[in-house]
Amino acid sequence: MRITAYRKAHFNAAHRLYRQDWDDKKNAAIFGKCNNPHYHGHNYDLTVGVTGDIDPETGYLIDLKILKDIIKKEVENALDHKNLNLEVPEFKELNPTVENIAVVIYNKIKRVLDERFELEITLYETPRNFVVYKG
Amino acid sequence: MRITAYRKAHFNAAHRLYRQDWDDKKNAAIFGKCNNPHYHGHNYDLTVGVTGDIDPETGYLIDLKILKDIIKKEVENALDHKNLNLEVPEFKELNPTVENIAVVIYNKIKRVLDERFELEITLYETPRNFVVYKG
Amino acid sequence: MRITAYRKAHFNAAHRLYRQDWDDKKNAAIFGKCNNPHYHGHNYDLTVGVTGDIDPETGYLIDLKILKDIIKKEVENALDHKNLNLEVPEFKELNPTVENIAVVIYNKIKRVLDERFELEITLYETPRNFVVYKG
Amino acid sequence: MRITAYRKAHFNAAHRLYRQDWDDKKNAAIFGKCNNPHYHGHNYDLTVGVTGDIDPETGYLIDLKILKDIIKKEVENALDHKNLNLEVPEFKELNPTVENIAVVIYNKIKRVLDERFELEITLYETPRNFVVYKG
Amino acid sequence: MRITAYRKAHFNAAHRLYRQDWDDKKNAAIFGKCNNPHYHGHNYDLTVGVTGDIDPETGYLIDLKILKDIIKKEVENALDHKNLNLEVPEFKELNPTVENIAVVIYNKIKRVLDERFELEITLYETPRNFVVYKG
Amino acid sequence: MRITAYRKAHFNAAHRLYRQDWDDKKNAAIFGKCNNPHYHGHNYDLTVGVTGDIDPETGYLIDLKILKDIIKKEVENALDHKNLNLEVPEFKELNPTVENIAVVIYNKIKRVLDERFELEITLYETPRNFVVYKG
Repeated sequence: MRITAYRKAHFNAAHRLYRQDWDDKKNAAIFGKCNNPHYHGHNYDLTVGVTGDIDPETGYLIDLKILKDIIKKEVENALDHKNLNLEVPEFKELNPTVENIAVVIYNKIKRVLDERFELEITLYETPRNFVVYKG
Repeated sequence: MRITAYRKAHFNAAHRLYRQDWDDKKNAAIFGKCNNPHYHGHNYDLTVGVTGDIDPETGYLIDLKILKDIIKKEVENALDHKNLNLEVPEFKELNPTVENIAVVIYNKIKRVLDERFELEITLYETPRNFVVYKG
Repeated sequence: MRITAYRKAHFNAAHRLYRQDWDDKKNAAIFGKCNNPHYHGHNYDLTVGVTGDIDPETGYLIDLKILKDIIKKEVENALDHKNLNLEVPEFKELNPTVENIAVVIYNKIKRVLDERFELEITLYETPRNFVVYKG
Repeated sequence: MRITAYRKAHFNAAHRLYRQDWDDKKNAAIFGKCNNPHYHGHNYDLTVGVTGDIDPETGYLIDLKILKDIIKKEVENALDHKNLNLEVPEFKELNPTVENIAVVIYNKIKRVLDERFELEITLYETPRNFVVYKG
Repeated sequence: MRITAYRKAHFNAAHRLYRQDWDDKKNAAIFGKCNNPHYHGHNYDLTVGVTGDIDPETGYLIDLKILKDIIKKEVENALDHKNLNLEVPEFKELNPTVENIAVVIYNKIKRVLDERFELEITLYETPRNFVVYKG
Repeated sequence: MRITAYRKAHFNAAHRLYRQDWDDKKNAAIFGKCNNPHYHGHNYDLTVGVTGDIDPETGYLIDLKILKDIIKKEVENALDHKNLNLEVPEFKELNPTVENIAVVIYNKIKRVLDERFELEITLYETPRNFVVYKG
């Protein structure tokens, strides 16, 4: 019996969108207000979905406490109250768009999640903009 | 890297459900309160999802400002503060159920959206009733 | 022990804003898109608050079932799936702005509510616009 | 034209997680606070999704009133204000995890739903934990 | 400069409504489904509001971490995943209506909060029913 | 007839909490993660409430379009996608706590709002923390 279980989490961070190999004019043209060199920030709302078979013994897909701890360690400790551009190694060369942040979170969780599970990341950057990434 | 990006929007409109080729009695029996000849109305909450590959140069799937402008032009300008039955050409012959409104919105956006994207429409008619249409 | 208990409800309706004693030009100038002669509509989200003393015997301020029934009878039956301008007597001469709708709902409930309670009406016309009226 | 229509509902219930064939120590180790022998409880938020083709005559996928009545009869009447372990036959031998409750709701609705529809159950146990089950 | 700062929290619990000094018939008549002797349960959403003057040195009304810790210790540890009737001393003789639970939470927090603050408790029992208590 | 009308808005910004006249150690001790010298950020959800008498001629308290334009000009243009510490003059010497941001917003709107209205600012810094300021 295949099911998906979801756990919601939350972090906030500062970022700016830009490419080091573009000049200021091109960065401003492409990324607009999100290119502000003094940074701006967001409350990111995260939903992590895990798909697999219900364990007939416990009735759990996964003990959600395990998933909560993975999110705490891999996502919240790494990203919460951080400047993504300056303090998070994955964004040293990678533009921290909401798409790329979702991919980074997927990869960080995938590495430590039991391989029998499929993974799905929903990430809200604002209440009106969000992405879904399934690897 | 395939991802779906979503943008939320909002419009409100009046409508009634009925078929011109049915008599009043049949219209009332099938559509109940929604058949009120004086119209009623809704706040429609819309989520537009676009699926494709992340552009490795920008880190964007699509510049959400482009998507926002498409929604403004194709949906909000056409439907907001309108009487769907009387003022929106697509519903001249088509019953404006939430299912049909979602299909009309899908077709209007699909026509102008870059063809490399898949499209997905979520439309809430009330906080408890909504539909998802993917073409 | 003074407390306020709240009950949420919901109705949807069509309306237009205008004054019969103004010409079309003035109505359009003051009420903009809301003046559309073909009507538009909303999902109205209503929260009814009742203030008084907790009954020491039951631990209730008011049996919320009683409040739910009052809302059903006085508000939902009167306004849901209606055209406020054409079908609701209170708006025969009164412009159905969200402010006036809140006052009408207050008066309808006040009339039948036990007089030991104070009453408070919160009415959302859209997810971003709402009013609070306390008599 | 394939579409999915959703209807939201709500019920609340008491439950505890445990297996009769495990001793208290193992039950406590695996299920933690959820194993409390005096029970705890939740407000369960349910979204029922139905997928099929839009009826070209009515513009409906399904009359949502029919779906609402099915949910009322099969889910709300059976589970609302109940102790799932003691009063709901399906959980006599089955641990009432959110995964298993979703499967039970799926099976109860599937049995009475027109077989041309696919069914999808979303069940929130808390605002942060939920599951999706599609059979 | 007088301001109110709010912190949200969450707990879930089982309860039933009844008075020991009433017979079963009267309890059932007054409390309906909430009187179920096998208990039912809720996710309680709590908002704690604290009013006072902004500290000109820090710009804080209160360090919200202090408020969060008070809520954790006084409310969550005492009520979360509990049977209110059987396991919480305050409800030994007191009917655990949402009104009374709000009063109990107010008293528990008031006792440990710096006395220069006013306190306000908002407690949701379901998404549609809630109370506000200010002492 | 006295009523309060509310309009919601949204902006996001980067900030850090600190006092220039304190050393790093004291700043870190008092403001914790919020003191990160590289900044972090938030989506701020704002609700502006205006209280006064309903205009009997229009049925409006205030044309909400006027209020929307004030919020756009005084708040969104000044704060959205900004670094509050570096780019907003009001926070040159003032710590940008959520309390102080609410006071600054109150003062900016109060200055341009018709003086017959009372003003009320609700500001969410995260989904769980918010303040209300009424001057």
